[in-house]
Amino acid sequence: MTIDIKIEKTTSPKTKPETKGLVFGSKFTDHMFILDYDHGQGWHDPRIVPYQNISMDPAAKVFHYGQTIFEGLKAYLTEDGRILMFRPTKNIERLNLSNERLSIPEIDPELALEALRQLVLIDKEWIPEGEGTSLYIRPFVIATEAALGVAPSLQYKFMIILSPVAAYYAEGINPVKIYVESKYVRAVPGGVGTAKTAGNYAAGLKAQEGATELGYSQVMWLDGVHRKYIEEVGSMNVFFKIDGTVVTPALNGSILHGITRDSIIQLLKHWEIPVEERQLSIDELEEASRSGKLEEAFGTGTAAVISPIGELNWQGEKLTINEGKTGELSAKLYETLTGIQKGAIEDPFGWTLEVK
Amino acid sequence: MTIDIKIEKTTSPKTKPETKGLVFGSKFTDHMFILDYDHGQGWHDPRIVPYQNISMDPAAKVFHYGQTIFEGLKAYLTEDGRILMFRPTKNIERLNLSNERLSIPEIDPELALEALRQLVLIDKEWIPEGEGTSLYIRPFVIATEAALGVAPSLQYKFMIILSPVAAYYAEGINPVKIYVESKYVRAVPGGVGTAKTAGNYAAGLKAQEGATELGYSQVMWLDGVHRKYIEEVGSMNVFFKIDGTVVTPALNGSILHGITRDSIIQLLKHWEIPVEERQLSIDELEEASRSGKLEEAFGTGTAAVISPIGELNWQGEKLTINEGKTGELSAKLYETLTGIQKGAIEDPFGWTLEVK
Repeated sequence: MTIDIKIEKTTSPKTKPETKGLVFGSKFTDHMFILDYDHGQGWHDPRIVPYQNISMDPAAKVFHYGQTIFEGLKAYLTEDGRILMFRPTKNIERLNLSNERLSIPEIDPELALEALRQLVLIDKEWIPEGEGTSLYIRPFVIATEAALGVAPSLQYKFMIILSPVAAYYAEGINPVKIYVESKYVRAVPGGVGTAKTAGNYAAGLKAQEGATELGYSQVMWLDGVHRKYIEEVGSMNVFFKIDGTVVTPALNGSILHGITRDSIIQLLKHWEIPVEERQLSIDELEEASRSGKLEEAFGTGTAAVISPIGELNWQGEKLTINEGKTGELSAKLYETLTGIQKGAIEDPFGWTLEVK
Repeated sequence: MTIDIKIEKTTSPKTKPETKGLVFGSKFTDHMFILDYDHGQGWHDPRIVPYQNISMDPAAKVFHYGQTIFEGLKAYLTEDGRILMFRPTKNIERLNLSNERLSIPEIDPELALEALRQLVLIDKEWIPEGEGTSLYIRPFVIATEAALGVAPSLQYKFMIILSPVAAYYAEGINPVKIYVESKYVRAVPGGVGTAKTAGNYAAGLKAQEGATELGYSQVMWLDGVHRKYIEEVGSMNVFFKIDGTVVTPALNGSILHGITRDSIIQLLKHWEIPVEERQLSIDELEEASRSGKLEEAFGTGTAAVISPIGELNWQGEKLTINEGKTGELSAKLYETLTGIQKGAIEDPFGWTLEVK
């Protein structure tokens, strides 16, 4: 199969920003990928063009009914100058799972991978050098049909944009304080919690604002049915080391199928550290904390990779974890996973894909 | 207070479409309203300009995190040529409730009302004449900041667009068949179900597709916690007449605060017909149907006003309501409400606002 992506290179390349101090997702590279969909015609006209604004009808369905999904992954520059993407086929698989849930037509996985490859190569000079840096890749689909009837759109755009990102931890991996949310809910089974779709993130903004006001960096979401089982932390999956066993909420129909989450589970199994995917209540966590068995806690996601949790505030009670310091396992997972991603240590899982 | 809205009129007015057979929300008028928001500056530059595409950065937050809300209301042309809007201040009130839930800055209600007034007046020639027709008004807010960090946007656009609509019932008010959804969930308390935000509609598309395939026009949503209490029908509120009493689900934190819903309740009270806002389970409905006490059912919303329900399919069991015909009360409510909206009958509630 030949995939023909039309390429229009920029004639006025932008000045690349200093990587240090760069705010996540604030600067974009010189090019972007676009693929159009029209009902009856299917996906068509894959092309790479200079990064630019798009022209949208104010009645476009994405503005009104939120029919949109996205992905997030990264490309890394190795010490010896190779370019690696981390598990891109998993992202493309999830992209189509999200599409399916949001009634968006499936995108050819081979075309999507080729688009990722070619776009990253064209803007490869934008991949930052140095510890912890990467090129963040944001594929997304938006419904563009200009019509206010509540029904799946007859037109879409699949786009990919790229953003250079600085090291997430400027001064080394560092635990955060988390507020356990009891008022707001992120998602429930039967809803769209497993899809990477805009509405899930909009729904979380209010709770996040409340947590920030109280001096916490993120919220921990409890389930929307019983209001007691742990789901996610901010927009990350979450893990707890309890009495030697690592526990993470099972994929129950409202939790995002995190690719970092999956990688962590595989790493732990590889190391023969007991890991359980199961229901975990805030009460069990509180009890484990009281009895000194809550040894570590950390969020996992593409942006931070591992985000250690030093404190949980549950209805005013502060559960301090590992004296507020990064746990040994959290640190080891972070070093191993970022090492694999950067090509600094061996990849026994075949997770990295060299782009050339 | 003087509200200064800058006006740029179109130099190339469009041809107005035939009203008959017009698909809802598919044609738009000659002008639109825009108001910008920038962090530190607040809402600024209210203006009416020719209807046109807007230029959006692909990284705009609305595309990725769904920070957007909307409203829907109508303007009507009376037989004697006056223009009426129906309860616009209620829509503006709800607009700001949705804004609050989605962490979007409040919009001055007086400015919003003035924008509605002036835009409708400029495009008044677009208000269709005749039974059941109207000019649909769609105010909406989108987050426009180009940044991928998950946080409230620092920039927004508040816009209003207008669309002429044909009579909802081309051949008279007509009952629909509804599929009671048991797999998918629209919203739960703690989520964004009470806000008129894009994500709620995206979440409903999949279930709607399934219902359409089975020959049903809409789904009826059950609550996401117990999976048995009735919430909404499609994107409408829902009412049932059971043994002489009209019952509608109470505003429980996951149901939209419908303005048509509120108007219906006020009308019923005015007529001294018993009306209850309370929890109502699908089991109670099934039992009422079996014992012959389920007399009428109808959805309520801005688009259809009243949409009678002739059949409910609950897990394969078909509950026929009023022999599949429009009930007497449904018809009376429809005629009264549309009569008030069109200025054809007296408005004892002060619901209509003349635009001049």
